[in-house]
Parts: sequence; structure tokens; C-alpha cells
Amino acid sequence: MPVPDRLLPVAMFDSGVGGLTVLHECLVSLPEEDFVYFGDTARFPYGDRTPEELRSFALEVSDLLLAEGVKLLVVACNSATAAALPALRERLADRLGVVGVVRPESRLAARATANGQVGLLATPATVASGAYAREVAAVAPEVSLTQVPCPDLATLIQRDGEIDQELVDDVELSCRPLTDAGVDTVILGCTHYGLIRPLLQRTLGRGVAIVSSGQAMAGEVEGELAARGLETAGGGGRGAYRFLCSGDPERFRVLGTRFLQLPLGSVERVAVSEAGRRPAGAVA
Amino acid sequence: MPVPDRLLPVAMFDSGVGGLTVLHECLVSLPEEDFVYFGDTARFPYGDRTPEELRSFALEVSDLLLAEGVKLLVVACNSATAAALPALRERLADRLGVVGVVRPESRLAARATANGQVGLLATPATVASGAYAREVAAVAPEVSLTQVPCPDLATLIQRDGEIDQELVDDVELSCRPLTDAGVDTVILGCTHYGLIRPLLQRTLGRGVAIVSSGQAMAGEVEGELAARGLETAGGGGRGAYRFLCSGDPERFRVLGTRFLQLPLGSVERVAVSEAGRRPAGAVA
Repeated sequence: MPVPDRLLPVAMFDSGVGGLTVLHECLVSLPEEDFVYFGDTARFPYGDRTPEELRSFALEVSDLLLAEGVKLLVVACNSATAAALPALRERLADRLGVVGVVRPESRLAARATANGQVGLLATPATVASGAYAREVAAVAPEVSLTQVPCPDLATLIQRDGEIDQELVDDVELSCRPLTDAGVDTVILGCTHYGLIRPLLQRTLGRGVAIVSSGQAMAGEVEGELAARGLETAGGGGRGAYRFLCSGDPERFRVLGTRFLQLPLGSVERVAVSEAGRRPAGAVA
Repeated sequence: MPVPDRLLPVAMFDSGVGGLTVLHECLVSLPEEDFVYFGDTARFPYGDRTPEELRSFALEVSDLLLAEGVKLLVVACNSATAAALPALRERLADRLGVVGVVRPESRLAARATANGQVGLLATPATVASGAYAREVAAVAPEVSLTQVPCPDLATLIQRDGEIDQELVDDVELSCRPLTDAGVDTVILGCTHYGLIRPLLQRTLGRGVAIVSSGQAMAGEVEGELAARGLETAGGGGRGAYRFLCSGDPERFRVLGTRFLQLPLGSVERVAVSEAGRRPAGAVA
């Protein structure tokens, strides 16, 4: 007898370990569900890939995760969401729901703001893509969005475990335009930023609501599972979770533990196309 | 012209680095205030000291912090609060407000519970002291408190940065009596436990409200400052904070960064009596 769909794990994928902050929120909010997470670390970062490459990567990864047997696909990566969400939804329409970032946290921010002034901290590529500006305008046309591109913030967060003065200075600099604009709500438009939430809260002031993709996505995943009748109904037990990555598993485990804030356990390597190779004409 | 009292820092003391989780919440909630933190690391841990010793330590530390020029004294240590809060309040009555743990989080938990079933995770010494049982009974006599002594939890958390399987198993074991009792609210009765809040939330289930001394104390400090007209009214600037300890400053800095989750900066060593020495007759 085949495993009923509702007992299958939820699949999540990201270009690396950043999406583990999203998985973290899902593990805390949906403790009974099983999860399988794929980090495409061999082709990380996605930020400087073309939309065509990202679509091809995302479709390849979704095939790989479908073969594992999963009940929902969560794209926890800004670049992949922006480039590949429609293609993924088209490909998987009959088989699997697909949830992406950007819209959930835009919706949450629109609900959270009282003065209509929302801020965004994100990578330059994400700001340039206009994804958040489009989504916020779609869900709340009356909201004004102040966008701050942060070229170094994700790197400074990933670099080491310690929150040092360079990081504090970068955060001060990044938050200043938001304070000047009088925002009362800030979207963290990069999965890394959730790791320094206390520092961001202190810098922005406690009157400012911070909305991360992690918390938004946990609610979105729950809603999707409920809408499709796919909740595990596990009866109070704790779900399992496991990890796949395309790069070095040990490096994923060490770095990932800090992002997940829960025990990571073992990580399995899976092969992907073009790992470590750049398309013709690209500069590494 | 002397510095107006409201521009002085808030003093906080603890037996070691655990109280930094309380300072963390205060720095996020009260970003304009200055703080000075004293960790009595040379005489750590306080758990196996007699009440007389703890009163003598607390009075010595309060003299030391008064000499620094402070406007409020926060005792972020369960053992010191239980043994020395009345003595500190008597000694400092005319000069300084004193805020201790236990009562603030007991009050918060009593407000949070809907079904009247509250749980407590704490060290065996804290459970044995009966401090939480007394406070909860005082603020909400109708509430039933299920207390779980956790002999190893603080040590497993402090041991290293990684959340490993041994810690997960210990958390499962500690939470089981609370789940069996049907609690809807849990007090973290040790400052260390806030560091593994996500793991505790996943284990207890998300319907359970977790109350830490950190969040309770941030509200208490704010209330005390307001009641005494001592808020800094800093106009949106970020306050400064600094650290004193009686033991090795570098060890304090390295360990403390993990507990504070904000940059720690420099740590100054100050001398205390009896550091490293046991009273006659005591076994080390």
C-alpha cells in the first residue's frame, strides 16, 4: 500500500544554508510535519545566475525532490522564486503545490503596518528585481515601500559566528534610510538577516515590526497544507527532518547548524548538473 | 555639575554569563538606556553557596556597582535573588531601586495561562528553594504549578555552541512531565534556557506560551525606571553598555558573546573578596 500523501515530507530548497532560517521557523511552528531540505551549495550563490539558468536549476531540483516523495514544494530562495516560480507551478500543477518567498512576507508586512510606511532590507539583486515592490503594490497599493540594497550584509552574517563591530556599523548604515523614512514595519528580504534579528530590532527601535520570510513562510506552508487536506495529523509526535546538498556535506552541516539553531544531524550529497561549472562566456 | 540620575546606566549582576540573556532583552527593548553588567565569574557558580555567603556577595557587588554610579540595580541571578533581595532592598532603600528575577516572570506566566496549568523548568536548587511556587501562589493562587528540576540542562547549554542530540534528549525528558500535566504556559526559571527557546518551543508544541526572565525583566526595568522618573529620554540614540567580571575577562568575552547575541566589546576585571576560595569546612 502506498504511503498516504499527507504522511510525506514537505520539501524545501534554497541555494545554500540561508533557507535554514525558514526551515527553523517551520520546525518550530509545525513540529509534527516531516521535512526534506535541499541546499544547492555546489552552484551557490544564485545571485549572479541568469533567469534561464535559475529556471533550469529549479526544475532539476524539483524533479530530484519529487523523486524523494514529497507533498509540497517550498522555494526558500529569493532569486529562484523571482526567476522560476511560474515555471515550477506550471510544471508541477497536477502533482504538487509550490510556495515561494516574497508574497507571504509582503502580505504580512502590509497587515502589520499602521502608518503605511514599510521598509525592505535585501541584496542589491533582489531590490533590482523589483519583486517586493511589485508584491507590496499588489497586496496594498496604499503602502509606500522604502528599499535599501545591502551589498555586504549577508556576507558579514555568514562570515563567522560573532557579531562584530563591522557588522554593527553595516546594520546602522542600512537601517538609517528606513528610520529617516519613518517606517513602522521592515521586511527582511534575505533569509540570512533573520540571524541578526535582535541587532536589527535594537537598531530600528522596538516600535518597528520586523517581518521575516521565515515566519511568513511557516504560516503559508500551514495554510497550503490545510487547503489541500495534507496536514500530517501526527497526534503530537515530533516530525523528522533531513538534508540534501549538492556541495560538501560536512561544510553544510557545520555552517547549517548556526542557521537552523536546532541539531542538524546527517547531510547527504546529491549530484546536480553544471556543479562548479560556469556557462560559456560567464566570468567566475 | 553632577550627571543627572536619569543619564546614569542601569546596573545588572549575575554569577556569570547567564544573565546576559536578560541584558540581551533589555538592550533590544530599551535601546536608549546605558547598562553596566557585572558577572561574578570568579565565584561562579552561586548554586552551592549558603544564603549567608550569597547575601555577603550581593552586598559587596552592590557597593561596587554603586561606586560606578548607577540608577537601578537588576539582580539577574536566581540564587542571589532568592537569598539576598530583601537584604539588598533594605541596604539600598534610600539610594537605588532593586529589581530581581522570579516575581516578574511569575506574574507574566499567571497572566499568560488560560487553563491555569503553568510549568517551570529550573535548576534543582531553584526548584528546592520554592521561590517560584511562592511567587506564583502569591500572584495567582488558582494556578497549578508543575515544577521540573533539570540537573544537567544549563551545563549542556553552556558546554558548547552546538545543539546536539544529548541536549535534545535532555529537553524531551524535561518537557514530558509538563506535557503530561497539560500546561499551556512554561516559565524558564534559569537564564541559560532562553538560548534554546526554539528547541523548547518545538518540543512543548507551539500552543504553549514560553515566559523567560529576560522578557519579563525588560518590562520590569522599564516600569521601574518610569515609576521613578529615571528614563534616559535619550532622543532616539543608542545607549552604551559595558562589562565587569571578577574572573578571566577573555573567557567572559568569548562565552558571553553567545549569550548576548550582540557584540560584547571589552570586559574589565574587578577584584572581589574570597574569589576562588571556599569558606572553612566547605568541600570544593
